[in-house]
Amino acid sequence: MAPAKIDLKTPKGTRDWDGQAIVLREKIFNTIKTVFERHGAVTIDTPVFELKEILTGKYGEDSKLIYDLADQGGELSSLRYDLTVPFARYVAQNGLQQIRRYHIAKVYRRDQPAVAKGRMREFYQCDFDIAGTYDAMIPDSEIIKIIIQIFEALGWNGRYTIKTNHRKILDGIFQVCGVPEDKIRSISSAVDKLDKMPWADVKKEMVSEKGLPEEVADRIGEWVVLKGGKDLLEKLQKDESLAANESMKQGMTDMGLLFEYLDCYKGALDAVSFDLSLARGLDYYTGIIYEVVTEGSAPSAPADGAAPAAKSKPKKKGKSSEDDDRSDDPTVGVGSVAAGGRYDNLVGMFSGKGQIPCVGISFGVDRIYSITQARMAAEKAAEPRPNKTDVFVMAFGGKGFDGMLKDRMKICDQLWEAGISTEMLHKVKPKLQAQFKAADTNKVPFAVILGEEELAAGQVKLKQMGLGENHPEKEGVLVAITDLVGEIRRRLDQMHRLEQMTQSASGLRVVDGVRAHKSCTGPTAM
Amino acid sequence: MAPAKIDLKTPKGTRDWDGQAIVLREKIFNTIKTVFERHGAVTIDTPVFELKEILTGKYGEDSKLIYDLADQGGELSSLRYDLTVPFARYVAQNGLQQIRRYHIAKVYRRDQPAVAKGRMREFYQCDFDIAGTYDAMIPDSEIIKIIIQIFEALGWNGRYTIKTNHRKILDGIFQVCGVPEDKIRSISSAVDKLDKMPWADVKKEMVSEKGLPEEVADRIGEWVVLKGGKDLLEKLQKDESLAANESMKQGMTDMGLLFEYLDCYKGALDAVSFDLSLARGLDYYTGIIYEVVTEGSAPSAPADGAAPAAKSKPKKKGKSSEDDDRSDDPTVGVGSVAAGGRYDNLVGMFSGKGQIPCVGISFGVDRIYSITQARMAAEKAAEPRPNKTDVFVMAFGGKGFDGMLKDRMKICDQLWEAGISTEMLHKVKPKLQAQFKAADTNKVPFAVILGEEELAAGQVKLKQMGLGENHPEKEGVLVAITDLVGEIRRRLDQMHRLEQMTQSASGLRVVDGVRAHKSCTGPTAM
Repeated sequence: MAPAKIDLKTPKGTRDWDGQAIVLREKIFNTIKTVFERHGAVTIDTPVFELKEILTGKYGEDSKLIYDLADQGGELSSLRYDLTVPFARYVAQNGLQQIRRYHIAKVYRRDQPAVAKGRMREFYQCDFDIAGTYDAMIPDSEIIKIIIQIFEALGWNGRYTIKTNHRKILDGIFQVCGVPEDKIRSISSAVDKLDKMPWADVKKEMVSEKGLPEEVADRIGEWVVLKGGKDLLEKLQKDESLAANESMKQGMTDMGLLFEYLDCYKGALDAVSFDLSLARGLDYYTGIIYEVVTEGSAPSAPADGAAPAAKSKPKKKGKSSEDDDRSDDPTVGVGSVAAGGRYDNLVGMFSGKGQIPCVGISFGVDRIYSITQARMAAEKAAEPRPNKTDVFVMAFGGKGFDGMLKDRMKICDQLWEAGISTEMLHKVKPKLQAQFKAADTNKVPFAVILGEEELAAGQVKLKQMGLGENHPEKEGVLVAITDLVGEIRRRLDQMHRLEQMTQSASGLRVVDGVRAHKSCTGPTAM
Repeated sequence: MAPAKIDLKTPKGTRDWDGQAIVLREKIFNTIKTVFERHGAVTIDTPVFELKEILTGKYGEDSKLIYDLADQGGELSSLRYDLTVPFARYVAQNGLQQIRRYHIAKVYRRDQPAVAKGRMREFYQCDFDIAGTYDAMIPDSEIIKIIIQIFEALGWNGRYTIKTNHRKILDGIFQVCGVPEDKIRSISSAVDKLDKMPWADVKKEMVSEKGLPEEVADRIGEWVVLKGGKDLLEKLQKDESLAANESMKQGMTDMGLLFEYLDCYKGALDAVSFDLSLARGLDYYTGIIYEVVTEGSAPSAPADGAAPAAKSKPKKKGKSSEDDDRSDDPTVGVGSVAAGGRYDNLVGMFSGKGQIPCVGISFGVDRIYSITQARMAAEKAAEPRPNKTDVFVMAFGGKGFDGMLKDRMKICDQLWEAGISTEMLHKVKPKLQAQFKAADTNKVPFAVILGEEELAAGQVKLKQMGLGENHPEKEGVLVAITDLVGEIRRRLDQMHRLEQMTQSASGLRVVDGVRAHKSCTGPTAM
């Protein structure tokens, strides 16, 4: 067939993940997954596409961003927009009364891509949700504990803030300030932009665009700029007009419980900010809402080296761009790396039966990846090895050397059977230099070098790569073939122990394969 | 919002994976991944959809099974049909000269689903491919070693056969027998059905449908029913008319090298059958082809309990149904659990430049899952736990008992911080029975039980679940809170050691998180 003249690229807003990027991303996935499992979660895997009607009416005006499959006969389907709606469909379809599930998978949004901001059309979400009828704020507090454990495990010690608010408090404030019931959601959306624009601009949007009387906007403005902790809750409780509002009462009781419960989780209160400007875009939230921001709140340099977006890019005023309304998306927004909240009515929308209350959190891995990668670069952290090959089997000989292919194969076979990651060059007569180069490319730590004479004596040379000029074992050591597996294991174990010590001392404390409780620090006093 | 009246289901040919099914499937993924990594593979992640033109002209008449995305403006895209074409696109796009990559991901085929046969529209493939210019048959032999290591790691000891053949040998036989050049691929497709229908039917298809002279078909029939090992190769080499054919010569040289090289890999020759009836459907193969079949060659009972298909379902004769032509699909076919081969021209179709030779294998995980699950059921193997919770924290008290919520939270916090998977019931005042029931549902091995008195003395009760009536620790043991983490770790380590011993003694030797070289058996003599 003649070569086709086609443009070799992935579709707009998508990318291939490979090299160091996918190694680091997999480590982040493992870290997140380990914490989810530490909290009793099971995982589920739903199809990449759902029946179109399942997604209809769940995303407000963002529904236009949904990817549809072509109508090729049969059912109409669409690619999933998030993992929450498929989860609610799953819970309703199976009549589940309770489940803690996590789901790490790709979602799809036919949005204008902005690679530098980490906004792609295909991107990963890592979701954890607790469904079931439980006592108030107990699951909600555990979600905060999970958020903390994940960012601590990622080495972001203290460099993040969990912003929280409560939909019922927001609604109460809007009611008390005099916002008409039918404007509450759109005023809420305007408030959500306070992390990106000053109050004056938000007020202008409320008044000029959304037709709110100026004095109502001013009253809102007194409250929504406030942030704090328990102190802020007490301030709200002391305000008589707020305290009399039914929605406020419910919200304040919840937040009171939250602060009480977080006090039982070491350091949790320090990580949380009660922030009245947090509103979140999606309609379906009914209680507490979360959003995690980090000090690197401007988008970090993405993997492909494109220039990072300016830290405080001026926003076009007076334009209700969809761009600004994407607060429901943890991978977009300014510095939001995770987001979620309580949604007690979504499962019931599907089942038509009783409600199954839910609360959850979604981690935006692409953004976490970009920030982690930028920090590792700044801290000059050692890059992970591209593959897991521990041993490169080589051969070397003088004139008339036949390449010892079958001998190399047999040594590889022995190591593979022992579970040791091993490669050799797929050439009959490889040059020594080509073999060392291949090993070096993948930073393989050990070489096994075969020679005719040594092999005749039942020996091979084992050489640790990259030893200094003066190291006594720089040239390698002779090892009996019968001892080879044991000797390599001994040296690998030593190397892994060393790596672990270095890792736990540095930023990214990635729990990678090793059972979590072995690599974590000791017990903490109560 | 009023509950919508919608049909709660996943789209046709798709399913949710959950419960025991996903736990087992993840273990299979990990087993496969561990072996891939043992052979130096890196992983890549390509988008779920590709530009439509990338897929065009790669799948012959199966192209009609490709899912297209709706035209919503912009580029036309389609869901990937396999992982091979995206891999070739990736290699060409990045101008790579060599790579060993694995990719575990979903692919999409708008085919008639057959759940009982494990044929879904969305299903997983696990692919491993070696791209690069190397010496003949060295990478090809390593692929066979990988196949063997994976099925051994899955515990299928000896219960599978790797069928191999060579496209150049097949083509040579067809040429020597007198098949016109333009009929070679369609005659090849007919031959591929020999695992499903007798020679008489295949011959009829060749003669009646494909217009091959009967005497040509008869000559083909003498060869393609043969299978064996080195002996069969020698038989071919001894035939003068075959030996004179250029294509045959190349194919026979390759197969000769294969047998030589496999002799270096312990037990490899025993696992391989040289089978002249193996043809494989896809056009792009250019050299060796593989297909792995297992003794459970009829589809096993699928996870949803539907009846398995009959072992030798009679085929409709004289009908060239697409059903029968799906030999390129490792998850379909009768008993094929993995398939692949050498494709030296595909990357060049994209790059338009020099060829990058490739050889690879694709494992059909859904089929492997079904067979593994059926075998575990038959062997009454212990089902894996649904989640990883190791400890359930409970409280118990008499009249006026307040539920000790905050004390439970603090104990959970201590265990989570130590990396121990822990749950508690999210109730303020849970009943003891409800707590035990929750722990029992997830088969949680340990309970920590709080009581007012014990707590006042700085102690809690640690109870291993499911101990017999006469066990001295049946009621649990009192442990100081300061020793709790250490005591639980000690008991968990003991439990895991026990589990590992049991696992390596039983069928599924799943390498699960633990570093591979620790869980494998000792070195093998050369």
